[in-house]
Amino acid sequence: MKEILWNIIEQVRVQSPLVQNITNYVVMNNTANALLAVGASPIMSHAHEEIYEMVRLCQSLVINIGTLDKTWNESMVNAAQSALEYDRPWILDPVGMGATILRNEMVRQLVALKPKVIRGNATEILSLAYHEKNAKGVDSSNLSEEAIQAGISISQKYNTVVCISGKNDFIIQDDKLISLSNGHEMMKYVTGLGCSSTAIIGACLAVEKDAFLAAAAGMSLLSIAGELAEKYSSGPGSLQAHILDELYNMNKDKFENCLNISNV
Amino acid sequence: MKEILWNIIEQVRVQSPLVQNITNYVVMNNTANALLAVGASPIMSHAHEEIYEMVRLCQSLVINIGTLDKTWNESMVNAAQSALEYDRPWILDPVGMGATILRNEMVRQLVALKPKVIRGNATEILSLAYHEKNAKGVDSSNLSEEAIQAGISISQKYNTVVCISGKNDFIIQDDKLISLSNGHEMMKYVTGLGCSSTAIIGACLAVEKDAFLAAAAGMSLLSIAGELAEKYSSGPGSLQAHILDELYNMNKDKFENCLNISNV
Amino acid sequence: MKEILWNIIEQVRVQSPLVQNITNYVVMNNTANALLAVGASPIMSHAHEEIYEMVRLCQSLVINIGTLDKTWNESMVNAAQSALEYDRPWILDPVGMGATILRNEMVRQLVALKPKVIRGNATEILSLAYHEKNAKGVDSSNLSEEAIQAGISISQKYNTVVCISGKNDFIIQDDKLISLSNGHEMMKYVTGLGCSSTAIIGACLAVEKDAFLAAAAGMSLLSIAGELAEKYSSGPGSLQAHILDELYNMNKDKFENCLNISNV
Repeated sequence: MKEILWNIIEQVRVQSPLVQNITNYVVMNNTANALLAVGASPIMSHAHEEIYEMVRLCQSLVINIGTLDKTWNESMVNAAQSALEYDRPWILDPVGMGATILRNEMVRQLVALKPKVIRGNATEILSLAYHEKNAKGVDSSNLSEEAIQAGISISQKYNTVVCISGKNDFIIQDDKLISLSNGHEMMKYVTGLGCSSTAIIGACLAVEKDAFLAAAAGMSLLSIAGELAEKYSSGPGSLQAHILDELYNMNKDKFENCLNISNV
Repeated sequence: MKEILWNIIEQVRVQSPLVQNITNYVVMNNTANALLAVGASPIMSHAHEEIYEMVRLCQSLVINIGTLDKTWNESMVNAAQSALEYDRPWILDPVGMGATILRNEMVRQLVALKPKVIRGNATEILSLAYHEKNAKGVDSSNLSEEAIQAGISISQKYNTVVCISGKNDFIIQDDKLISLSNGHEMMKYVTGLGCSSTAIIGACLAVEKDAFLAAAAGMSLLSIAGELAEKYSSGPGSLQAHILDELYNMNKDKFENCLNISNV
Repeated sequence: MKEILWNIIEQVRVQSPLVQNITNYVVMNNTANALLAVGASPIMSHAHEEIYEMVRLCQSLVINIGTLDKTWNESMVNAAQSALEYDRPWILDPVGMGATILRNEMVRQLVALKPKVIRGNATEILSLAYHEKNAKGVDSSNLSEEAIQAGISISQKYNTVVCISGKNDFIIQDDKLISLSNGHEMMKYVTGLGCSSTAIIGACLAVEKDAFLAAAAGMSLLSIAGELAEKYSSGPGSLQAHILDELYNMNKDKFENCLNISNV
């Protein structure tokens, strides 16, 4: 498994896929840099007039709903529709799902357009699974377990891979489940690292048809980079820079030695 | 006083308040990172459809007018109105006040919605105080003194705390005035540090009802972090990263030893 | 020549010109920081209501079409028109020229408004020169030579300076041509460094009437900063920060010793 995941990461470097991103304002710079650091070629455009052309030009698509508004919402839906039409794999990051009606509506629209992967934190995944039931009965002490059940249900309902990030990350497809235990506590204090992992998974989707493997490769790569970078970072500011350095300097040995993966 | 200010900073870490930000494109990443580094939870959304829900969800609000346009102007006014309605403290950063008619109009609209704190540089505060008089007669050799008079007049007129940042920072409420002398010259070469201090004051407002103290705590925290970070930064690029490290690593001893505060 | 270019860089520090930027979301923070690091004063606003005032307030203008949409397209055209009207020099960065119809149209509109400098990579410059011929017959093995021919033709047609960035950078005005061979391979892995050099050239245009010299000064400054910063950067994340440090710390000796310039 370790070698399979590494090969995907290596293929991103070899093929340098064009990855179209519609993401939030807060993380655009980091996201573009994370994609460059892993060897992909980011495109960050959203104009309605060019979105079809851009998606067709690219090998995969990333949609992140962090900073919504009318113009961008329409860009997102258009982009996802283009991806469906041109058969480009795409990943959805449902930032803030559950927080507002607008976010719930946007995610509802977008999941219908067949993302290959949905990546979010436990709260977002739970909200996505249960929002018709108003997310009642979530017991935070069992958040992981509840979130995994939610992930399985989403995976089956929408025929997609679900990636739940947190202290441990879970990759779920139907009844397949793996757990990743890399990363470092300090990563929570850097904005947009979840968005970076979403984008890196997007790059992996461009070179690997098996979305389950692509999600595991992308997710683990960012977590391992963070774990390695933290060792010589004095705080979240230097960590943000060093994670990009580690993504750029990652090699087979480092990756396979650090990777902490298990079937659950 | 030192201990009172430190306690506010500590409360931000303990309570990790949700802080809603409508800020400019240039600084969104830094602002979110500054809020995370001090232990707060940033939200950066602006869609008209969700702004009421978001403000209600949060414990305080930050409005920074750096990059205006029609959509965002409306978001700002809606957000400030929501803050007033739901009784959430909020802070205004009148970036570029005095430079254009649009900025003057926006600030006029926003100050009517009762910000607890207004933070700007001397030019912005002078423009806000005297824009009906076209800022005539400003003698730059006495900029601090003139700005303090302007700050007092704004504080009284709008019943708000005014924070003037510069070589020395001044916190003004009615006839109360303190001066902070921390920070470092090199900070002027990093974009958006003023915006970061506004956001951190916003976080402090979420945990401290006395806006004068909240402003002093937030303002001094960022200045001290910059002062400490400069010691091992080779220029403004590394300074930007290290300030976040210092915010994250701040402790009572460092803060109280560095704090240079005086009543004027 | 070396001293002439250094004098321009020094004049930016001395005069600290206001530089108005309409640039893309991805690079706004870096661009503002690059301008601050070289001693200029960046303004990043785009509201239609204030764009005329802002351009008039500034000494030069930078337009970068990285992230287009209806609002911003209009801002760009308005800004360029204001620059023409108020006689402010401006530079165009035609990001992604050739990729979509929208980009081609925008650039067509903007070049008619007389930029003093156009800076792009070889693909963008080739697309701009030949887009009526659909860029057929581009032989990538001769990309530099083809691009130079394209640059000459653009320079003559639009009476502008063309700057082509790549492994070597070329500055072209009519039949004048110089080549710059600074920089480092790793710079390709940092997003927006091309945009930063565009902005720095913009700052140089504010203090130097000869646009050919301004372009050479700005372009070489960023490349040299990158070359020096790479020596102590462990990857693109730290490189991004250290380039700003090097811009800030640049001096006559470093600049003149590193500068690798030749007439072609």
